[in-house]
Amino acid sequence: MSLPTPPRPSEAAVNSVVAALQTRFGDRAVTNMAIREQHGHGEGLPAFGLPDVVVFPEMNEEVAFILKTCNDAGVPVVPFGAGSSLEGQLAALSGGVSLDMSRFDKVLDVSPEAMDCRVQAGVTREALNAYIRETGLFFPVDPGANASIGGMAATRASGTNAVRYGTMRENILGLTVVTPDGRIVRTGSRAKKSSAGLDLTHLYVGSEGTLGVITEIQLRLYGTPDSIVAAVCQFDDLDSAVNTVVMALQSGLKMARIELVDEMQMKASILYSQLDFEAKPSLFLEFHGTAFGTAEDVELMQAIASEFGGSKFDFAEKPEDRNRLWKARHNAYHASIAFMPGKSSMSTDACVPISELANCLLETKADVAQTGMTVMMVGHVGDGNFHLGILYDANDPVETEKAEGLSFRVARRAIAMGGTSTGEHGVGVHKIVHMREEHGEAVDIMQQVKNALDPKGIMNPGKVYPASI
Amino acid sequence: MSLPTPPRPSEAAVNSVVAALQTRFGDRAVTNMAIREQHGHGEGLPAFGLPDVVVFPEMNEEVAFILKTCNDAGVPVVPFGAGSSLEGQLAALSGGVSLDMSRFDKVLDVSPEAMDCRVQAGVTREALNAYIRETGLFFPVDPGANASIGGMAATRASGTNAVRYGTMRENILGLTVVTPDGRIVRTGSRAKKSSAGLDLTHLYVGSEGTLGVITEIQLRLYGTPDSIVAAVCQFDDLDSAVNTVVMALQSGLKMARIELVDEMQMKASILYSQLDFEAKPSLFLEFHGTAFGTAEDVELMQAIASEFGGSKFDFAEKPEDRNRLWKARHNAYHASIAFMPGKSSMSTDACVPISELANCLLETKADVAQTGMTVMMVGHVGDGNFHLGILYDANDPVETEKAEGLSFRVARRAIAMGGTSTGEHGVGVHKIVHMREEHGEAVDIMQQVKNALDPKGIMNPGKVYPASI
Repeated sequence: MSLPTPPRPSEAAVNSVVAALQTRFGDRAVTNMAIREQHGHGEGLPAFGLPDVVVFPEMNEEVAFILKTCNDAGVPVVPFGAGSSLEGQLAALSGGVSLDMSRFDKVLDVSPEAMDCRVQAGVTREALNAYIRETGLFFPVDPGANASIGGMAATRASGTNAVRYGTMRENILGLTVVTPDGRIVRTGSRAKKSSAGLDLTHLYVGSEGTLGVITEIQLRLYGTPDSIVAAVCQFDDLDSAVNTVVMALQSGLKMARIELVDEMQMKASILYSQLDFEAKPSLFLEFHGTAFGTAEDVELMQAIASEFGGSKFDFAEKPEDRNRLWKARHNAYHASIAFMPGKSSMSTDACVPISELANCLLETKADVAQTGMTVMMVGHVGDGNFHLGILYDANDPVETEKAEGLSFRVARRAIAMGGTSTGEHGVGVHKIVHMREEHGEAVDIMQQVKNALDPKGIMNPGKVYPASI
Repeated sequence: MSLPTPPRPSEAAVNSVVAALQTRFGDRAVTNMAIREQHGHGEGLPAFGLPDVVVFPEMNEEVAFILKTCNDAGVPVVPFGAGSSLEGQLAALSGGVSLDMSRFDKVLDVSPEAMDCRVQAGVTREALNAYIRETGLFFPVDPGANASIGGMAATRASGTNAVRYGTMRENILGLTVVTPDGRIVRTGSRAKKSSAGLDLTHLYVGSEGTLGVITEIQLRLYGTPDSIVAAVCQFDDLDSAVNTVVMALQSGLKMARIELVDEMQMKASILYSQLDFEAKPSLFLEFHGTAFGTAEDVELMQAIASEFGGSKFDFAEKPEDRNRLWKARHNAYHASIAFMPGKSSMSTDACVPISELANCLLETKADVAQTGMTVMMVGHVGDGNFHLGILYDANDPVETEKAEGLSFRVARRAIAMGGTSTGEHGVGVHKIVHMREEHGEAVDIMQQVKNALDPKGIMNPGKVYPASI
């Protein structure tokens, strides 16, 4: 298995681009080493590549200028949002320009009547939700990190609310995209649905900056529900927790969130946040609706959980109480890191059909046990998606290889069960080894599209597409 | 504005393809004139193009053989599902092969546990729902006609249930596609979500047979709700009916169907089916959920409707009663045709943000009044989508031009309001004139993708993409 190794542009080409960018952008084109290093990676993985320059554009025309300059010179461009991606998407593998979108931080338009908004790509989801709070609307996609909306679009992110509100895929109506040759193009419309030609919006969503740069996003918004009820239920074993979820989904029960936290993650979270739970497999639930509706849903869910030996629910309705109740889930990442200081956490992202979820989780648990490593598990189980947080010493090659081996097997297991190696994190560099296994010849079609829309291959090279055989 | 006029292949090329297909397929490669004529058009529009031969493949490898043969010879291929498309998608504008998918009629797999299924492209939605009825699951997308699932995927169809269950876009997990050069490729997976590379599934969905042939579709299924309540509410004017819908949507009320039928269509439907309604603007509603849930929803919706002067609801819960209640909506097309025998019905398909819906409908109503034509209006108003049925004499050039003019203005009005010229029917030949207006330079990106995936331009030529300027 060979990873693609994008060729480095000539030093002269890089120098000409850096000079052109410094002339146009002044101190918004930065070659300071600390800034370049900060832009050479995301989170969680050691994947790293130093960009030659970091540019901070503020409008579409500036992005177009940067891309056209780089395209003419054959110099790579790596779009950079909030820096929270997990699969190595941000490493400038062959140098070039890191395009920092953080100054694209304006909410351009909010329409409470149409229940949509248009934001620049650098707006973070927390900033957006703060901005629109008083309209009574909210944007539901919540990947945990305070990612930028542009980055979430580029990786087709989702998170805890997806079981009810969908992922970025379902919540983007249209985009503004800058092409590698510097055209500024709008895709989609504000209509909820359309059959007007190729769905370019969903071609760019999830393309991880390999086809162009997403600069604006038209988003669907939702009314804040009248009633939000959070609940936690604990189980003696993972199997019972998962079977509760599967039965609830098959019965059509509407939940806004169904998160599984395994006993190891619960142990870490209890320690980290001094929580009054047992270190047992737990479901963190949230119900959205009318007061009647959520009461009915909770009752039905409690009945299903009880059949599988689940505990009596802990409830919360007020925002501060819900947050306290959900703390073990919200703090999972930090709790896992604090559990073994000095270790890194490698994240897996398997997603399988709901019918395979119990099998996949249990086989994975057995696999984890065989490794003897310390591994946490949390899951957006309503979507069939779960993450391992594999604690390992990134400076120890043996431990790193063990972590990589486990991560590899989890992805392949998901694919073999009809699922995907990555439910919401994207491919980056880390999941490329699974692309051919997961997609077969469809990978060649992806490469044909890539070649058509980025013929000089400047956009985020070395990511997503495996090297040709 | 020039429409693309695809070049006709040479007679020798066509003859060689016909001979090759007859050799391989025997009496499944048909040159009988009646069959060719039947395959040269869809419904509603006069657009017509006679294919040279109609082929009835039965497996993926046969489709691959046909496409490869045609691609090598430069002969066009027009995929044909149930023949119910409305925008001229099926006209073989430059002859060639009509690829009739009706023998792809098998449901390949149903998983009640995963709530999904895999069907061949020629399976109709009614056949699918009959096949899975005893599992307690159903496939919700309902465009009215008993279309094939492949055709519905190719046009990104939706229909009355989309406000709750989404369109084909939201309900397709993956595809098998045959490329013009004869590769058989699977896209997507059975996972509910994935971030693994370019979203080829949604590139092919809605591509109207211009990139390849969809032969299999992996679909999401839904549990039949415990409680289904249908209701009809009548209003003194269109404005009140629409404002009821907008307020209901903004309040987060969950409805499975919200259909608007205007007074002219009601008049035609009452005559056609001897119904006990008034010829007034009416909302046809359906609520899905638990018994408690639907009762609560109905109560809230009745309260909103009453604020706008809506009548007391007519209700129905049993399937046969619901069907009787919804008859005026279900029979709308046939009722409109019967209303003025000898006339054809030209259908528009505007879809706008919900905030613009009242404006768009009222401006369109005024426009209709000025034409003096007989026009029916029905709308999937929960999506901001509505159709005019413009009755006109297809043999009268003056009347045809008037109908075309009205249809043109409706599409442009929707685009100007941030919407789309076609919410669910597709582009075909009839909406090509709006593509540049709606998408601007994004049309060029679509064309780049088309050229990359169908370099010889054999797939359904003359559709979707406007001629280059």
